[in-house]
Amino acid sequence: MNFTYSDKVKQYEQKLLRFMDDYVYPNERLYKEQLDPHNRFAKTPPIMEELKQKAKDQGLWNLFLPDSEYGAGLTNLEYAPLCEIMGRSSIGPEVFNCAAPDTGNMEVLVRYGTEEQKQQWLHPLLNGEIRSCFSMTEPDVASSDATNIRTSIVREGDEYVINGTKWWSSGAGDSRCKIAIVMGKSDTKANKYEQQSMILVPLDTEGVTIKRMLPVFGYDHAPHGHAEIEYKNVRVPASNIIWDEGKGFAIAQGRLGPGRIHHCMRIIGAAERALEELCKRVENRQAFGKKLAEQGVIQEWIAESRIEIEQARLLTLKAAYMMDTVGNKEAKAEIAMIKVVAPNMALKVIDRAIQALGGAGVSDDFTLAASYANIRTLRLADGPDEVHRRAIAKYELQKYR
Amino acid sequence: MNFTYSDKVKQYEQKLLRFMDDYVYPNERLYKEQLDPHNRFAKTPPIMEELKQKAKDQGLWNLFLPDSEYGAGLTNLEYAPLCEIMGRSSIGPEVFNCAAPDTGNMEVLVRYGTEEQKQQWLHPLLNGEIRSCFSMTEPDVASSDATNIRTSIVREGDEYVINGTKWWSSGAGDSRCKIAIVMGKSDTKANKYEQQSMILVPLDTEGVTIKRMLPVFGYDHAPHGHAEIEYKNVRVPASNIIWDEGKGFAIAQGRLGPGRIHHCMRIIGAAERALEELCKRVENRQAFGKKLAEQGVIQEWIAESRIEIEQARLLTLKAAYMMDTVGNKEAKAEIAMIKVVAPNMALKVIDRAIQALGGAGVSDDFTLAASYANIRTLRLADGPDEVHRRAIAKYELQKYR
Amino acid sequence: MNFTYSDKVKQYEQKLLRFMDDYVYPNERLYKEQLDPHNRFAKTPPIMEELKQKAKDQGLWNLFLPDSEYGAGLTNLEYAPLCEIMGRSSIGPEVFNCAAPDTGNMEVLVRYGTEEQKQQWLHPLLNGEIRSCFSMTEPDVASSDATNIRTSIVREGDEYVINGTKWWSSGAGDSRCKIAIVMGKSDTKANKYEQQSMILVPLDTEGVTIKRMLPVFGYDHAPHGHAEIEYKNVRVPASNIIWDEGKGFAIAQGRLGPGRIHHCMRIIGAAERALEELCKRVENRQAFGKKLAEQGVIQEWIAESRIEIEQARLLTLKAAYMMDTVGNKEAKAEIAMIKVVAPNMALKVIDRAIQALGGAGVSDDFTLAASYANIRTLRLADGPDEVHRRAIAKYELQKYR
Amino acid sequence: MNFTYSDKVKQYEQKLLRFMDDYVYPNERLYKEQLDPHNRFAKTPPIMEELKQKAKDQGLWNLFLPDSEYGAGLTNLEYAPLCEIMGRSSIGPEVFNCAAPDTGNMEVLVRYGTEEQKQQWLHPLLNGEIRSCFSMTEPDVASSDATNIRTSIVREGDEYVINGTKWWSSGAGDSRCKIAIVMGKSDTKANKYEQQSMILVPLDTEGVTIKRMLPVFGYDHAPHGHAEIEYKNVRVPASNIIWDEGKGFAIAQGRLGPGRIHHCMRIIGAAERALEELCKRVENRQAFGKKLAEQGVIQEWIAESRIEIEQARLLTLKAAYMMDTVGNKEAKAEIAMIKVVAPNMALKVIDRAIQALGGAGVSDDFTLAASYANIRTLRLADGPDEVHRRAIAKYELQKYR
Repeated sequence: MNFTYSDKVKQYEQKLLRFMDDYVYPNERLYKEQLDPHNRFAKTPPIMEELKQKAKDQGLWNLFLPDSEYGAGLTNLEYAPLCEIMGRSSIGPEVFNCAAPDTGNMEVLVRYGTEEQKQQWLHPLLNGEIRSCFSMTEPDVASSDATNIRTSIVREGDEYVINGTKWWSSGAGDSRCKIAIVMGKSDTKANKYEQQSMILVPLDTEGVTIKRMLPVFGYDHAPHGHAEIEYKNVRVPASNIIWDEGKGFAIAQGRLGPGRIHHCMRIIGAAERALEELCKRVENRQAFGKKLAEQGVIQEWIAESRIEIEQARLLTLKAAYMMDTVGNKEAKAEIAMIKVVAPNMALKVIDRAIQALGGAGVSDDFTLAASYANIRTLRLADGPDEVHRRAIAKYELQKYR
Repeated sequence: MNFTYSDKVKQYEQKLLRFMDDYVYPNERLYKEQLDPHNRFAKTPPIMEELKQKAKDQGLWNLFLPDSEYGAGLTNLEYAPLCEIMGRSSIGPEVFNCAAPDTGNMEVLVRYGTEEQKQQWLHPLLNGEIRSCFSMTEPDVASSDATNIRTSIVREGDEYVINGTKWWSSGAGDSRCKIAIVMGKSDTKANKYEQQSMILVPLDTEGVTIKRMLPVFGYDHAPHGHAEIEYKNVRVPASNIIWDEGKGFAIAQGRLGPGRIHHCMRIIGAAERALEELCKRVENRQAFGKKLAEQGVIQEWIAESRIEIEQARLLTLKAAYMMDTVGNKEAKAEIAMIKVVAPNMALKVIDRAIQALGGAGVSDDFTLAASYANIRTLRLADGPDEVHRRAIAKYELQKYR
Repeated sequence: MNFTYSDKVKQYEQKLLRFMDDYVYPNERLYKEQLDPHNRFAKTPPIMEELKQKAKDQGLWNLFLPDSEYGAGLTNLEYAPLCEIMGRSSIGPEVFNCAAPDTGNMEVLVRYGTEEQKQQWLHPLLNGEIRSCFSMTEPDVASSDATNIRTSIVREGDEYVINGTKWWSSGAGDSRCKIAIVMGKSDTKANKYEQQSMILVPLDTEGVTIKRMLPVFGYDHAPHGHAEIEYKNVRVPASNIIWDEGKGFAIAQGRLGPGRIHHCMRIIGAAERALEELCKRVENRQAFGKKLAEQGVIQEWIAESRIEIEQARLLTLKAAYMMDTVGNKEAKAEIAMIKVVAPNMALKVIDRAIQALGGAGVSDDFTLAASYANIRTLRLADGPDEVHRRAIAKYELQKYR
Repeated sequence: MNFTYSDKVKQYEQKLLRFMDDYVYPNERLYKEQLDPHNRFAKTPPIMEELKQKAKDQGLWNLFLPDSEYGAGLTNLEYAPLCEIMGRSSIGPEVFNCAAPDTGNMEVLVRYGTEEQKQQWLHPLLNGEIRSCFSMTEPDVASSDATNIRTSIVREGDEYVINGTKWWSSGAGDSRCKIAIVMGKSDTKANKYEQQSMILVPLDTEGVTIKRMLPVFGYDHAPHGHAEIEYKNVRVPASNIIWDEGKGFAIAQGRLGPGRIHHCMRIIGAAERALEELCKRVENRQAFGKKLAEQGVIQEWIAESRIEIEQARLLTLKAAYMMDTVGNKEAKAEIAMIKVVAPNMALKVIDRAIQALGGAGVSDDFTLAASYANIRTLRLADGPDEVHRRAIAKYELQKYR
């Protein structure tokens, strides 16, 4: 394993750090203020498009894509420290066109899309002109077991007809969100892992209805949000199928590997920021006759946080390295591990920071509470901890069979 | 220790349980819907006043007050199971006029108020006509150490002049909130625990400005909310002082004991509800070939939750019993213990329930996320865990000195 | 629930406390020194018989037995605080003839023994003349699931023939140990919970061989120890069967309830002693410019320990109260809970004490390491934590079916 | 960071793995059996010298020493995976002459020893002819704060006179142990970190008395053991001082860095072995109708264990890499982190394995209980967790000052 950063990465890192300091952090508050208070999903804060243009001008754009035809040609390992930096701000990833779920969706299109699909959806996504969502989870079943998914995708002539209700389709509230990748059952008689397909559904297709936007601990995550979407007799051309019928699971596996590691990188950035906020605060407050920074209990929090962040980062780098060198499939145990480790680590770090900051910590004066709520969902999204642990145990036990 | 319920308590319990089933749970959603979407602090949902009237009619009113002249004359131990039931719903306590911070404020007035103060503020509070807030915590200092509080309360002739900024004045956003109890320094030269005083400040006094409402994990907790309040050259009659100058700490000690135990009782109710939501859900979902309720990991969550709730409840009952029999002061160690135990216990139980419910758990379809956010603040309010643990250790070590 | 101590209990408590101070603690070291260094199982330290005689003289004898014909006639609730006091010393319970596994075995004989069995085995046990062991666990199967037990107990004419290997037969190394209660399969075709029987096997019967004594974390627990015993064509009279063929599970249920709660009470005593050793030590050591007792981290350990002990004790009292009032069967959830809670609590408390004492903590200069090792086995004995949690979850889920 | 193994390391790894399989594991039991039951410290089991000779013959000798003049010339990073393999067996490190405390003592002599000191003590140690101990910790003070150490080392003419009592001098019970490095105060008036010196004291010097051997959780760790040693008017030539008077702290810093990381590497090996024992066992036992390996709770244990081991190993490799590239001083935060992480990780892993194995786990049929006891001491030795966390916090906070 070689985690040494190349010069290329170091250059990107410097540029990114400067960009964050100069443009991203100073505009976090403005971004929130520019949301329409009467309809927070009505429009994107204009500052976002300004920042995106600036990032694009500086070549800090689509860094996530390993494919050099479209992206920056960085390996997962190279992208890791950069993604972490973006993840320090909740508005960071979008600024650099590296936000979920678009990154995962773009990867799907790069890998499995037809030329026509790429033309129509990949290119505007790469340009940051539109956004996309991913409709997998369903309210009526335990979606942690993807074989439970029951939305139907039925071929009728030159079309597919889609029926079902999805939720946690993140980003669908955004006025710029134009396309959904929908997962559903196309063949209930095939073997278990070949029953599901993925298909492209433009959100303006008849029969697509956003029923409501779901809050996350009181946050609406506007203007993107998390939608419950009804797909009722939705008809799309047969050419909208991705790869082929029955490939839903295969695509999900391909999509979720990079998606998961990107989440983990961002999470590590968020944890670093929380620790920074904690340290700065305790250096500047007194209680019971001495600085909070001198209280033994708080020192333990800082030490444990530093230890946990370091370990999570190293494991994430290892997973990235393995994805680059032996492939996502061989790296499946490591991907599963970081998927469990990163959010749990960050929640602990952030919770300690909240405790150190007191009331300020649960408010929106700092990033902590929002970050906590956001990352709490990542113990559920893309498979809950328990499903990943089960998989890790299976891989481990196989050594002894 | 005798935790046996008296017949009086059993009767209240039955009435309360029925009232919750008949009126409270079925109206939780309506309550939220009746908030004004354009100004969520503008008015109280009308259903609340209806429910209050019903509760009053049934004699389920002011049960929290041990004093039989004003309240139901229940001991802390008798009130505990009733308060727990109310705490199962976030709108429960107010329905029965048993909500914080009014309960604590009413106790202060009962104990330390003059006849005039009682007439003017206690009686309308007891009737549920007005609400109140408690202005102690300040944004600029570590308020976990109350000696840090620096708002000034200065005598000038027949008046006191108050200057300072407070935050986390919960309930101050409510249009019915008319009075604040403000803590501040009246004598910077007195000994450390006699520098602070408490004083009554009507919120419509000149110089009182609500600067903003603070969110808690994205929740605004409308229509009550948590206010940042500026007190700028606020003048009130000298007769508004509570008890006497320099009695701030003494009152705080008296106020916080019952306040803390009430919080703990409610928290236990919230934890019970979370466990109930967990159990019902896992009985009705399948993954990987069996009911979630049959998965070993989930069974561990249920068992640990049941164990932790039982233990927290017993310790709360013990604290209540001691407050009743040897007094709040002698019960200080037990009060500190439950203040640490109850919120931490509930956060664990609720977090497991969230994990078991998946996306539904972080949304507002269930009580879990809101309950989590609310209870997370109770590891900070009325003294953070660390301050209480420090006190518990001190009491323990005294045995060996 | 009424946990108030009766005067009778208070008197026993005072006498016991004095006895511990006067005779037990001061002789702990002597007891160890009197073991024969060349064969630590050869004889009981003489001091033990002296202490037993003293305890008997003072009426501090067989307090564990609820049955007043043979014992002190104390309820479980009454016995709890007394058993806790005995548990503070590893040699305490035997001094008062209240040590496992004899207590459990005596209860079995009181409840299910014939007059002849009582005459032969119960009376000398009650007198402290002999000791006994319980042969249930087997080395070759997961004995946590008792249906796995495969030792055979086969009727042949007027005898039963026993074949099998048992281990963790605690106490069998003791030269005074004369009798074993052996559990095994008498009918492999009966329904699952009626296949097992219990039978009395004198240890000097032909075919009974103690293969070896098992260490616990390096401790041999001499002179009692934990034996691996081979039962090879062991023949005993048919009258040695307890209760009846097929009653093994029924007896185990009856035996284990009180046995478990006694363990928990003793464990709480051991935890109290650990906390005491911790507190005394940190009051007398300095590091980095202040007393260890003034270090925030150590204060947290003390506070958490106090909190956990209090909660475990209250839950144990509740379980005892329920056993007394509604019976062992109705109290099964509470018994399972304390069986999980008490050892885990004590291990945490003791581990903190070890950490606070440093090297002294892992040595035998204090009770900590020995206590840790001993209590670690109690997360396994009488059913591992996981089996109890599974049962607790089952009881909880039944409410929702 | 580049963690790629060189070919040299891979070759050593293969040879070591084979050696462990062929000679070490198969002789673990014999080693124990060859101890003299009447005086377990009387002699070293002969198998040890046989194994040492075999290891020496194969060039698997002194791999720990970075200095190529004396050792194998491996960097810390190169040594890490090899040390981990040795650590899988409690007798492994000594077989390869890589056991504590000799490794640390040899490093001290290589770095700071005079030619004469090297001749007399280093060479026989390198040859495995003698063993050594390290006398730092004292029974009467909190030695976690090394400034507390009060043994005196006083110059008188051409000699130093040493007075004091040390304990936890590991290895001093071994008949082959000839030399101690003793730390003590040579100048009580110097600045705090220059008061202590280290000096070589042959164990056969007059006035050196081994008072007793200390057990660790019931284990005597014979034939090496942990000694309490009295140094009473012990006189050694002035030339026995190491480096110079007042250099005790400086040497300790240098000695403890590599010593700590070696411990961590071995601990990771022990954790891997525990996980292996767990997995093998649960694959072969049934309870409640299915293999233990199929129980969800046990799968969680396996997954968490794998995750924690991976993370601890990566952090250890990072620390090793930093020691190699920027030096022990710059790597101090990372060294402190692994010193906290590795033992705590291993204790968790081993404890889960014990729980999975049941009674077998606490016995000596497996390595688990012995490994637990041994590693438990490593949360104390070379500085308790709390001291390291304090240091980590200090380094972290310095970024914000």
